[in-house]
Amino acid sequence: MKIAEIGGEFALIDRLIASMPSAHADLIAGAGDDAAVIRISPEPAPLMLVTTDLLVEDRHFNCLWAEPEQIGIKAAECNISDIAAMGGRPTWMFISIALKKSADVDWVRKIYAGISASCRRYGVVVAGGDTTQSPTTTINITLLGTISPSDLCLRSHARPSDLLMVTGSLGASAAALSLLRQGHTPSEYLLEKHLTPRSRMDVAETIAPFANAMIDVSDGLGAEVGHICRMSRLGAEVHLDAIPLHSEVIAAGQALGIDPHDFALQGGEDFELLFTIPAEKMPLLAKKASPFHEVGKMTAKNEDPVLVTADGHVQALPGGYDHFS
Amino acid sequence: MKIAEIGGEFALIDRLIASMPSAHADLIAGAGDDAAVIRISPEPAPLMLVTTDLLVEDRHFNCLWAEPEQIGIKAAECNISDIAAMGGRPTWMFISIALKKSADVDWVRKIYAGISASCRRYGVVVAGGDTTQSPTTTINITLLGTISPSDLCLRSHARPSDLLMVTGSLGASAAALSLLRQGHTPSEYLLEKHLTPRSRMDVAETIAPFANAMIDVSDGLGAEVGHICRMSRLGAEVHLDAIPLHSEVIAAGQALGIDPHDFALQGGEDFELLFTIPAEKMPLLAKKASPFHEVGKMTAKNEDPVLVTADGHVQALPGGYDHFS
Repeated sequence: MKIAEIGGEFALIDRLIASMPSAHADLIAGAGDDAAVIRISPEPAPLMLVTTDLLVEDRHFNCLWAEPEQIGIKAAECNISDIAAMGGRPTWMFISIALKKSADVDWVRKIYAGISASCRRYGVVVAGGDTTQSPTTTINITLLGTISPSDLCLRSHARPSDLLMVTGSLGASAAALSLLRQGHTPSEYLLEKHLTPRSRMDVAETIAPFANAMIDVSDGLGAEVGHICRMSRLGAEVHLDAIPLHSEVIAAGQALGIDPHDFALQGGEDFELLFTIPAEKMPLLAKKASPFHEVGKMTAKNEDPVLVTADGHVQALPGGYDHFS
Repeated sequence: MKIAEIGGEFALIDRLIASMPSAHADLIAGAGDDAAVIRISPEPAPLMLVTTDLLVEDRHFNCLWAEPEQIGIKAAECNISDIAAMGGRPTWMFISIALKKSADVDWVRKIYAGISASCRRYGVVVAGGDTTQSPTTTINITLLGTISPSDLCLRSHARPSDLLMVTGSLGASAAALSLLRQGHTPSEYLLEKHLTPRSRMDVAETIAPFANAMIDVSDGLGAEVGHICRMSRLGAEVHLDAIPLHSEVIAAGQALGIDPHDFALQGGEDFELLFTIPAEKMPLLAKKASPFHEVGKMTAKNEDPVLVTADGHVQALPGGYDHFS
C-alpha cells in the first residue's frame, strides 16, 4: 500500500510512532510538536529542545532558483523556526549533507556560509555533522535548544476562547513558488520570502510567556490550526477576511487566477508564528511587541476547525501541504 | 573544483569546519570525533553526547540485498556505535527519512521495526524526526547520549606507548560487500556482519574507564588509527600479522584474489571498537571483558602511522574509505 493511500504523511507518522519505543517520563513532548521537549535536569532547570528537518533538492530547495547561500539560510532558519515555535532559544546545530559526486567545493562552502550566517545571528554553535555522497542533494539539520519550563508553548496548550494570532502576513513564499512554476518572475519581496525566509526568533521569546499554544506556519495556516486543535482537543474558527495578506500576494493571486487566501491557508514555508493567547493578556503582549494579527479564536468543542467568510458562511478549514499527497 | 580534487571527504570537512561558528567553552569536542561532547551542567554532572549519520540508498544500504528490518538495524547500530566509541550510553534518537513516492507503507514500517529493535536493546527512546519525499531513499539518525566526564574517551586522548587494541575481528563487512558486488554469495556469517552489524555497546562502558582514546572502526582500521594519530599528535605502528581476521574473511580474500588484510585496513562498517590503553591497565580490563586483540601501539613521534609486516618491513599505513574518492 502506498503512503497516499493510507492518508498521507501524517497518517504514516502516526503509524510509525505507535510502533516505536517513544514513551519516557522525561520526554515531555515527542514527535507531534515542532520540537521534542526533554527534561535533562529537575525543574525549574531549563528543558532541552530538539528538532530535525530533512531538506531535499527540488522539493525544499531548487538549485536553479536559489543561490547556495540562500539554500543554507533556509535550511538553518526552518530549524530555528521550530525552536522559536516552542518559545525557546536555539543552541547547538548538527549538519548532515549528501552531495553529488560532481558537487563544486565552492558551491558547498556557500551553503555552509548561509547556514553560518543564520547561526551567528542567533548565537548557535555548529557542533558536528556528517557528509556523504548521493545522486540527490540532501541536507539534514538537527538543532538543539533550551527553554524555561514556564515559557514552554506546546501545541496541546490552547484553551477555549483563546485568540488565534499570527506574527505577520502569510502566503508570500507559496505565491512566489507558484509564480516561478508558471514561468513568471516574482517581485523582490516575494522572492526573498521564498528563498531566504526568516524565522521569527526576534519575537518568539517575547510572546512565549503570554501565549498558551504556539506553532510555526510551515505547512499553511489551515494545517497548523488543525494541529493545535487536534493536540488541544478543541475546535477553532478562522475568519477568512482577517488573514493578513501582503498586497503582492494578492497581486500574485490575481495574476495566476488563484484566491490569494489559498497561498496562506494551504501554502508552505511562511515561518511566521501562530499562537493562542487569552484575550486579556493580549494588551500586555502588544505593549512589548507588535503588530500581531488576530485571525480567529479557539472554541470549546473538540471538532475540526472551521473557516468563516465575510458573509458568515461556515466551511471546513482547508488542510495544508502534504509531502505524499 | 570537485571534492576529490581537494583531497576528498575529510579535506572538505576541514574546510567547512574552519568557516563555521564552532567554538564554545561548553563544546568539549565537536566535529572530528565520533560524537560531539557538550557540557550541559557543571562537572562532575554527566556530559551530553550527540552523533548524526546520513545513510543513502545504494551507498550505505542496498534495497536488493537488505531486508527493510536489516536497513533499520544498521542505521540504528552505526549511530549507537558512535556513542559507544566515546564510552557513553545512548539515550534519545531522532529519525529523519526521505522516501520515494512509491514507497510501500509496510516496507517503511519494517525499517522502523529494525530501528526499534536496536533501540529497545539499549533503552534508547525515539523522541522525534521528520518524513519527506525524495527520489533517493535517505535516512538521517541523530542520537544523543550521556557519559561521566571521567570515562570520556576522545580520539585526542592517546598517550605514547599505549597499546592499540580492537574488540573483535575485522573486515567481514567489506568482504561480504566485495563478494556481493562480484556476484558471489557470501556465507551466513559474512552476510550478517554486513547487513546487520552490531555496535559494541556490550563492552564499551567496561572499556571506557581503562582506555585513553577510543574510536569505532567504521571506515577501516587504517583510517581510524590515522584519526587517533592526527588528533593525539602522535604516531603509531600496526602489526599486519596481529590484525584479527575471521577464517571466512581469509577465504573471501582467496576467492577474490585480494589480500584479506585489505578488507580490515581499508573496508568499512565493522563497528568494532579500536582503543588505546596503557599496557599496565590491560590485565585489569582483561579480567572484566575479553578477548581483545592487540594490533600495535602508539609512538611518541607526531608522524603518519606505519604498518609493520612479519618480516619487519615498514610502510605507510593505508588509509580507509572515502565517500568522495
